[in-house]
Amino acid sequence: MESLKQKILTEGKVLSDSVIKVDAFLNHQVDPAFMQSIGEEFASRFAELSITKILTLESSGIAPAVMTGLSLGVPVVFARKRKSLTLNEHLYSAEVYSYTKNESNEISISKDYIDSDDVILIIDDILANGQAALGMIDLVEQTSAALKGIGVVIEKGFQDGRGKLYRRGVHVESLATIASLSDGHVTFQNKEDAV
Amino acid sequence: MESLKQKILTEGKVLSDSVIKVDAFLNHQVDPAFMQSIGEEFASRFAELSITKILTLESSGIAPAVMTGLSLGVPVVFARKRKSLTLNEHLYSAEVYSYTKNESNEISISKDYIDSDDVILIIDDILANGQAALGMIDLVEQTSAALKGIGVVIEKGFQDGRGKLYRRGVHVESLATIASLSDGHVTFQNKEDAV
Repeated sequence: MESLKQKILTEGKVLSDSVIKVDAFLNHQVDPAFMQSIGEEFASRFAELSITKILTLESSGIAPAVMTGLSLGVPVVFARKRKSLTLNEHLYSAEVYSYTKNESNEISISKDYIDSDDVILIIDDILANGQAALGMIDLVEQTSAALKGIGVVIEKGFQDGRGKLYRRGVHVESLATIASLSDGHVTFQNKEDAV
Repeated sequence: MESLKQKILTEGKVLSDSVIKVDAFLNHQVDPAFMQSIGEEFASRFAELSITKILTLESSGIAPAVMTGLSLGVPVVFARKRKSLTLNEHLYSAEVYSYTKNESNEISISKDYIDSDDVILIIDDILANGQAALGMIDLVEQTSAALKGIGVVIEKGFQDGRGKLYRRGVHVESLATIASLSDGHVTFQNKEDAV
């Protein structure tokens, strides 16, 4: 998605060979009209799959997920992060390890909002090592709903998230894939939507 | 807002005389088209105020804030919650006490995204005792930007949030004001938008 790549180049801040800050338009400040175009792009890529519900993870996934839901005409459920594993019979829960924070969080959704006959699309802001996505896949599997794919706004192609999702048999669509952040410079992969 | 009141009546779950769960359409699951109509309603109520930026708080404020930003054509910044007060020169921070969780959280925004010449509208999902709103007012005051009002989706009129905001001189618009949750029954206030 060309407009997204432009945003990354002009508003992203490369902090190291593996870290880029996209607070300006994705993680902290959001341009709603641009986010709507992201939602439309996801909707067009998953249009033929009869999606009935979108799952995302608070907080940065919510804006792109809601805009995708607006385009597809389906509800959005956002999984909650919690510090510790508390038993609750009415929740599906999964563990997500964060490499950046070096801590585990539990993510969970209420059993009320995803049924076994739902057809799920997962939307998230960033795909890096895939931990958050794997946690959400875990949640979907517990619901027995069908998982039709994962859409991520930005993929760090130099980390192993995509490989992990591929081995789980999940179709991934990234709107922009960063091949490298070496020397403070963003290099994109040419082909970004094939698994 | 009549459609919102209907949602509250049909999908809200009254848990006690002071607690109503609105997970089904506001706090956990979101209906994007309905959220867009909420954004349009806020936009029309604050249309004449030359808003340049919306401030909200993760996570449940993000969907209504982004939809309001879409209607008004302005960016949205979402304040982050953190567990403990960590000094960071590049952040504006405020303390928010949660009565429900009996704990304090720090909320913060980067200094990069709100300037002194911004005209701010705060959007949040619920106004109850007003702690989150006061925290966001605190942040806006630190930026020296102008605060033009606060829009909340649901106000618990039987708690003292509105009074606190009134004493701070802040204009409040609520899309639905709950007067009482007694006996498992939701009663709305007739007039919901005057301070």
